[in-house]
Amino acid sequence: MASVNPPRGMRDFLPAEKSRRERVLAVIRERYRVHGFDEIETPVMEEHGRLHAGIGGDNEKLAYNVLKRGLDADAIRAAADDPAALTDLGLRYDLTVPLARFYATNRGQLPTVFRSIQVAPVWRAERPQKGRYRQFVQCDIDIMGDASSRAESELITATLDTLDALRLDGATVRINDRRVLDWMLDSFGFTAAERPGVLITIDKLDKIGPAGVAAELRDRGASASAADAFEAFLVRPMTLEYNPYGERQIRKLLPQGAPDEVVAHLVGIGEAVAAARGAQETPLVFDPFLVRGMGYYTGTIFELAHPSVDYSLGGGGRYDGMIGGFLGQEIPAVGFSIGFERIVDLVPALDDVAPEAVVLVHDRDVPDAELLAHKAAVTARGVRVRLEHRTKNLKALLERAAADGYTTFATVSAGAPAGSLEFKPLA
Amino acid sequence: MASVNPPRGMRDFLPAEKSRRERVLAVIRERYRVHGFDEIETPVMEEHGRLHAGIGGDNEKLAYNVLKRGLDADAIRAAADDPAALTDLGLRYDLTVPLARFYATNRGQLPTVFRSIQVAPVWRAERPQKGRYRQFVQCDIDIMGDASSRAESELITATLDTLDALRLDGATVRINDRRVLDWMLDSFGFTAAERPGVLITIDKLDKIGPAGVAAELRDRGASASAADAFEAFLVRPMTLEYNPYGERQIRKLLPQGAPDEVVAHLVGIGEAVAAARGAQETPLVFDPFLVRGMGYYTGTIFELAHPSVDYSLGGGGRYDGMIGGFLGQEIPAVGFSIGFERIVDLVPALDDVAPEAVVLVHDRDVPDAELLAHKAAVTARGVRVRLEHRTKNLKALLERAAADGYTTFATVSAGAPAGSLEFKPLA
Repeated sequence: MASVNPPRGMRDFLPAEKSRRERVLAVIRERYRVHGFDEIETPVMEEHGRLHAGIGGDNEKLAYNVLKRGLDADAIRAAADDPAALTDLGLRYDLTVPLARFYATNRGQLPTVFRSIQVAPVWRAERPQKGRYRQFVQCDIDIMGDASSRAESELITATLDTLDALRLDGATVRINDRRVLDWMLDSFGFTAAERPGVLITIDKLDKIGPAGVAAELRDRGASASAADAFEAFLVRPMTLEYNPYGERQIRKLLPQGAPDEVVAHLVGIGEAVAAARGAQETPLVFDPFLVRGMGYYTGTIFELAHPSVDYSLGGGGRYDGMIGGFLGQEIPAVGFSIGFERIVDLVPALDDVAPEAVVLVHDRDVPDAELLAHKAAVTARGVRVRLEHRTKNLKALLERAAADGYTTFATVSAGAPAGSLEFKPLA
Repeated sequence: MASVNPPRGMRDFLPAEKSRRERVLAVIRERYRVHGFDEIETPVMEEHGRLHAGIGGDNEKLAYNVLKRGLDADAIRAAADDPAALTDLGLRYDLTVPLARFYATNRGQLPTVFRSIQVAPVWRAERPQKGRYRQFVQCDIDIMGDASSRAESELITATLDTLDALRLDGATVRINDRRVLDWMLDSFGFTAAERPGVLITIDKLDKIGPAGVAAELRDRGASASAADAFEAFLVRPMTLEYNPYGERQIRKLLPQGAPDEVVAHLVGIGEAVAAARGAQETPLVFDPFLVRGMGYYTGTIFELAHPSVDYSLGGGGRYDGMIGGFLGQEIPAVGFSIGFERIVDLVPALDDVAPEAVVLVHDRDVPDAELLAHKAAVTARGVRVRLEHRTKNLKALLERAAADGYTTFATVSAGAPAGSLEFKPLA
């Protein structure tokens, strides 16, 4: 215990940063609520088996596991070859697995179409690096019980509206559908068994380009004819007409014969989001090579982009199978998650006018009873007030108070009658 | 994974309960802020050694420990005789130990007198029983860097004002000082070594009475003459004059010769709190046998009581030594914690008027683009809106919406022009 730091990769939040984070979260919650979503909360721990059932993908490996209580020496020795026996609970690594469990637990008390908000921390034992933390906040909205594309439209509209409210307008949503990817890979001749590996490679298209993707597919031992067909498609000459998001554009970006049902689902989302957003430019971009890592997606997938940064600010998709795994009954579900840690630093200051807040600078000899009465006269008005001993350098004291968000000060001497304080603005 | 429940002793919060909890927490945070306190946040995990350094008292035994990552079979076998080697992190069991660590870590960036708010969950592996949970929220305010009784006065005033804002007025604070207890036990003739055991027995005075306390002390093998002297004091005849909290009352309730400094500290708190609370009846009660369990208290200790319940709603005290243990430098510190889970069910409804919220009941054939445009027209006004498929039993649907806090509805048919919806109040 020589160092006094928080655990590696985890952070303390001092007042200014805490207050900024809470203001941003309050806007997010408020906009989601306006869009008809309801906040819920689950415990930070779930049963170990549930967190390690294979649906969490790579995140399962990053989970913090909680030591089972009451293990004796024999039980510990016996666990040497089965470390999972040491643990019965774990900290959640995302909000989706707990939500699926929550829905299965509480379904009888929830409306048929349930729109949830979760704003809460998750934990992953990532290698610490810039911008990656082992405890971080996610903001998820999900709709359960609606298989139609309206669910996606509501999620995307609520998310974009929330970004607007955070003064991050101009955001766009890249969208694709896992069924499009599956069909496309089929049509090139990849087998179903090859699909997961091929998707991992396609996910690198932005970084390594068409030739790189084709080379990696061949290295992986994918069918040569399929890799050839795919490369030819990627490098095909193409004229993009003006039709930023719609059926013609979607079909133009895909091989011929894309399934009508999936295209209609994507078109429906575009039309509804455009209607909700009014005359503004359409915020959707169809990207037939958007993959998203999680194995549980079954339909649409999307990612949130903003012109100010080159990384995604969030994403989501449809995971119609997951809740069924807990409940034994299929429930359609789709969610959109904002990466809070990624956006909080982009959000400009949200308060145009700092609310009144008072510093009472008092001499050392003012009796507590007088001081507390002066303070109570301010708190009674609902105005924030801090007591400060007068120091030699009054200017430095007042500057520090102004930096902490205080707007007004008064000096207090012993014997000053109630109501006699003179309040002055802080520079 | 046959059951789909949250882990034992932990709770899901559905929308109505989550919303109620957040409203109560918002009032608590707002009142604390007004009193000049600033919210901070620490990670939910701290280093295992720090959580098990002896300052957490009995709570250390209830801590959830996190399994060290990357343990191989040999390391697990080796840990059979030293289970602590299996863990390097743990979930906090209170907010005081993390606060002391936070202050030691960040002291250079904090004001000389630092007034903190922490509103956050803690975890204890308690035996589940009514009203006891394994994850629960605490609301703590603390003042670091002020050794004077003004710190206690500010904490008590802020806490009582917060209870008022929650419409739980009439609360009182029982107060004592560990130095009073120590002096009193000395004066009866108990040795310093006997003190911790004697305090545990005194803590039962309300339950087992003076004779029970004396008997238990003798059973424990405490000095017989000291036990006799103590019992005689407890059963002494005493006339209480009208002086509900002040020097005379405090001295009257103690053996003769109580140390002036400690009595003055207690009197000072009473005068300042009375001045801050104005003409209302004094909310302080001196209780020379109030003990409070934690070993780290060094001075004043207090407990929050309310006439509506017979259990304490919170408490706190001065722990001047703890931060020094982390920092190598003594820092005075005193805190007051509200037991959130204990008060949340006592708080009456805080919203006098439900804010406007709209349900759009639509036929199944309304295109999504029309529906989302109707919805956007409502969200643009900042008003909450939920879409609902029309069902055969419209009355039941509207009743459910009203129970969920919605105030208004409109029915939507295909082709209804923008702005043509007719909004009606929900019964």
